[in-house]
Amino acid sequence: MATVKLWNDEEVSANPRVKAAFDDIRVTRKSDFVNNFWRALANQPELLERTWSGIKQVMVEPGALDPLTKELIYIAVSTINSCSYCIHSHTAAARAKGLTDQQHAEFLAVVGMAAETNALSNALQVPIDPEFNVG
Amino acid sequence: MATVKLWNDEEVSANPRVKAAFDDIRVTRKSDFVNNFWRALANQPELLERTWSGIKQVMVEPGALDPLTKELIYIAVSTINSCSYCIHSHTAAARAKGLTDQQHAEFLAVVGMAAETNALSNALQVPIDPEFNVG
Amino acid sequence: MATVKLWNDEEVSANPRVKAAFDDIRVTRKSDFVNNFWRALANQPELLERTWSGIKQVMVEPGALDPLTKELIYIAVSTINSCSYCIHSHTAAARAKGLTDQQHAEFLAVVGMAAETNALSNALQVPIDPEFNVG
Amino acid sequence: MATVKLWNDEEVSANPRVKAAFDDIRVTRKSDFVNNFWRALANQPELLERTWSGIKQVMVEPGALDPLTKELIYIAVSTINSCSYCIHSHTAAARAKGLTDQQHAEFLAVVGMAAETNALSNALQVPIDPEFNVG
Amino acid sequence: MATVKLWNDEEVSANPRVKAAFDDIRVTRKSDFVNNFWRALANQPELLERTWSGIKQVMVEPGALDPLTKELIYIAVSTINSCSYCIHSHTAAARAKGLTDQQHAEFLAVVGMAAETNALSNALQVPIDPEFNVG
Amino acid sequence: MATVKLWNDEEVSANPRVKAAFDDIRVTRKSDFVNNFWRALANQPELLERTWSGIKQVMVEPGALDPLTKELIYIAVSTINSCSYCIHSHTAAARAKGLTDQQHAEFLAVVGMAAETNALSNALQVPIDPEFNVG
Repeated sequence: MATVKLWNDEEVSANPRVKAAFDDIRVTRKSDFVNNFWRALANQPELLERTWSGIKQVMVEPGALDPLTKELIYIAVSTINSCSYCIHSHTAAARAKGLTDQQHAEFLAVVGMAAETNALSNALQVPIDPEFNVG
Repeated sequence: MATVKLWNDEEVSANPRVKAAFDDIRVTRKSDFVNNFWRALANQPELLERTWSGIKQVMVEPGALDPLTKELIYIAVSTINSCSYCIHSHTAAARAKGLTDQQHAEFLAVVGMAAETNALSNALQVPIDPEFNVG
Repeated sequence: MATVKLWNDEEVSANPRVKAAFDDIRVTRKSDFVNNFWRALANQPELLERTWSGIKQVMVEPGALDPLTKELIYIAVSTINSCSYCIHSHTAAARAKGLTDQQHAEFLAVVGMAAETNALSNALQVPIDPEFNVG
Repeated sequence: MATVKLWNDEEVSANPRVKAAFDDIRVTRKSDFVNNFWRALANQPELLERTWSGIKQVMVEPGALDPLTKELIYIAVSTINSCSYCIHSHTAAARAKGLTDQQHAEFLAVVGMAAETNALSNALQVPIDPEFNVG
Repeated sequence: MATVKLWNDEEVSANPRVKAAFDDIRVTRKSDFVNNFWRALANQPELLERTWSGIKQVMVEPGALDPLTKELIYIAVSTINSCSYCIHSHTAAARAKGLTDQQHAEFLAVVGMAAETNALSNALQVPIDPEFNVG
Repeated sequence: MATVKLWNDEEVSANPRVKAAFDDIRVTRKSDFVNNFWRALANQPELLERTWSGIKQVMVEPGALDPLTKELIYIAVSTINSCSYCIHSHTAAARAKGLTDQQHAEFLAVVGMAAETNALSNALQVPIDPEFNVG
């Protein structure tokens, strides 16, 4: 259960500002499905607009990193932040962008290894080598 | 300052088990430089061996994800875990594997956006859409 | 499902120490409803007492911060710690103390922005400006 | 040491896009001092612009929460995310906005209490009371 | 719902590599029950093998720390990482290894106190005393 | 650098409430050394008293868990919360209570393994087995 109301399509249609954001999500993603994250954010039109605008700019527009790599970075962050919703939605998004089982397996291995060595480095309080200095 | 002693090369050479691990790190990485993380782990030869064996298998051996993508996933995990040492060492590693400034900028944008939407999803306690079910 | 038994009112009544704490919770909050957090802590009477005593001192007694501000700080911490239970219970508490939808929207915007810039600062390992020194 | 170069004022002046953002930061804050966070973000003009635009909208423009409350929420998030830079910069900002020692003391008590009960709730895996359901 | 398929015993039996790992889990633990964590990891045989090998070496083989202490450390980490699954499975494991209610109560008190003072230390950015230097 | 002033012994002596707490810390610990954490908390006498009282009750008074086990749980929490100060102070405390190098090595192995499997469980969103239900 959410801490706010989830807006259904009828409620969305009745609010021009929210409707405009949902329309853009549907057109941009070429899909009628709008997931619950946006239906929860609909309670805060300004935050909805700014968040969607950011996601569109960062995750949808072409850039120097390919879309699948961006999704894997997103899932890595969501995993460590223990955000169940985000892990589910972005693992689904990664699959839709072509993530293979073998790539998923390697992704999991890297995330697990990083979490382990992060814990070791923190527990040992390893001092940063001067060689890593950017200068 | 570390919570354990950092082993210098002389101390490493005096312990066959640690020396063998350090030799393999140097040969595998084609570099004489062994960073402080391993010099701290040298106090625990068994953990040193298991950790290096894991890193070698996951991060060095070729697989379905390219080496730079793996480093970006690693930095993403380290950033959220707030592991200063790991952020420094793996950003340096990513640069050595060809990370461009434009790629770094996009990486930062994705990590920041993911952290923001993780916080929003958690605060809103968004319920997982059945569409994300693997089945 | 909890990792411990949740005490019902009958079990509470049978233990004088737990009963005393529950009585004080009900009197202090002017409500018969005692939420599951306390029913789980009832297994550890000493911890129950110390925790309730702390909550009463910090969250209930009047001070220099108003009660709603304290709840927002509480939810911010709970969100980043990904504590579903705490997010739910303290968002409900904030609403009971007058949180408006507009205030909730701004709260979410601040939490999201802070999480994003935390990730950026950590990934960039920004050195602390001497101007921030307390002296 | 940062993982990127920090831009000095001369370098900022040579890049029109970065200079425009810095000028707006100075005008908006009515201060010549621009802290290291922005000097690190200067390497990514697009991210610099989007982040500053977000901060300005969320933290500077008047809204339903007063500026000091927003800073306290910000520090709470930064504390749990263990972002040293953010804790320093936003504690300084809160002081500049009038945070008293007594308010700081209460803030610390709330953050500490929340962190403690978050850990207890998570360890006990307390089930969410139906009374907290939004509907 | 998981982000991957959970393997049932029939599927496990059809894959020699996965079957060998499951057989070793059952023999080592002297129990037919294999919990969902391993059924999820079965999708990644290499990761399954490496993870089980690590768990066996670290958690099962006798060492300088007794098995119950190791489980408590495990639950402490899982609590702060907000890993519901791990908290459940390792609290059950600790009980199977003799954890008493009184020990569980003290464990909770320590975890809560540590989480509280961690938040205070981070918010106060307490400088490390030279007396803690290992040298 | 801290976000608050650290009190020296002269300042402590001038405040009867703070002096009483420091006196009790010294007597209880049988040592003149009072570390920076308490010198920072001295700015908030009420929080200082409540925190010291909690630490004394949880970490000093004899109970069902031995003192070294409690310190290891404390360091595990501090490691995952990335609290540098707490990792340093409690690793020193554990050593003072007899932690051997071999025990430290095993502790590190458990913390690392837990962090790794936490990340895997979260990324896989493994559903909790009904067998772990307390009932």
